[in-house]
Amino acid sequence: MDDRVDHAKNPQRLYVWGRPAPKACMNLEAQWIAGFVDGEGCFHVGIAKHDEMTMGVQVLPEFTVVQHERDAQLLYALKAYFGCGVVRKNHGDRLAYRVRDRRCLVDVICPFFMKHKLKTSKNVDFLKFRRVLLKMENGAHLTAEGIEDIKRIAAGMNRGRSR
Amino acid sequence: MDDRVDHAKNPQRLYVWGRPAPKACMNLEAQWIAGFVDGEGCFHVGIAKHDEMTMGVQVLPEFTVVQHERDAQLLYALKAYFGCGVVRKNHGDRLAYRVRDRRCLVDVICPFFMKHKLKTSKNVDFLKFRRVLLKMENGAHLTAEGIEDIKRIAAGMNRGRSR
Repeated sequence: MDDRVDHAKNPQRLYVWGRPAPKACMNLEAQWIAGFVDGEGCFHVGIAKHDEMTMGVQVLPEFTVVQHERDAQLLYALKAYFGCGVVRKNHGDRLAYRVRDRRCLVDVICPFFMKHKLKTSKNVDFLKFRRVLLKMENGAHLTAEGIEDIKRIAAGMNRGRSR
Repeated sequence: MDDRVDHAKNPQRLYVWGRPAPKACMNLEAQWIAGFVDGEGCFHVGIAKHDEMTMGVQVLPEFTVVQHERDAQLLYALKAYFGCGVVRKNHGDRLAYRVRDRRCLVDVICPFFMKHKLKTSKNVDFLKFRRVLLKMENGAHLTAEGIEDIKRIAAGMNRGRSR
């Protein structure tokens, strides 16, 4: 597929892992990031119908941090720290730092939060999120059984999690 | 004033700075706390009518972190870290770690966030909060002019802050 066409359709891919990130003037420490994500981060697994996919559904794991646009610099600093993801308008005066690229989620985001553990119950969501990603690495999203398994895990995350 | 009577009226004072905090099993790092407070903390200056006060109003600076009750352990860990404040029911299924004791705010909370700087625009609120506390240390809340000054600063904090 022509890269430019793909970018036009999916602007989040304009800046993916491995490409140079805009310079951020803010130095972040790993523990600060863990604390901030404990408060403001979200690990989400979206499951959407998609006729072109093998199983008719697309599994979309996504890591996001949403902030007011006045703190845009901070989101760019996260992007620079992880060396992947994009900063995009969220809704209203909010911006989101968002990572959807699976290689980046598996190779960068997950190892970071395995090393610098979240301290709130958000860690439960992160561990489920990572489980889905590891299943996808083994092709679980390409089988009916795997999709059911992933749906079950995703349904128990965030608001669906038993409190 | 009889301490016990005061405690009965104001239960938050049951655990003030200097008294032993309940044991918390969680070790927090300063940078994690800064990151978490950047996301979840609140620096607030309340101003309430109070006939018994010199100027007829009471200035109530307050630092709070609110979490779902499932993360109560974390709030107790903050309390143990700072060695002051209380954990109390907030609303619904939420708990708050709250510091109102002025000595603790001036001697513990402010120096912590001066050393471990907040990175979001919440730092602007913290600096205004600290300014009010330093004014109170100089007795500003005991003069009409000082109260007006504090009211003006407080009105420009949090949602009143120009964005």
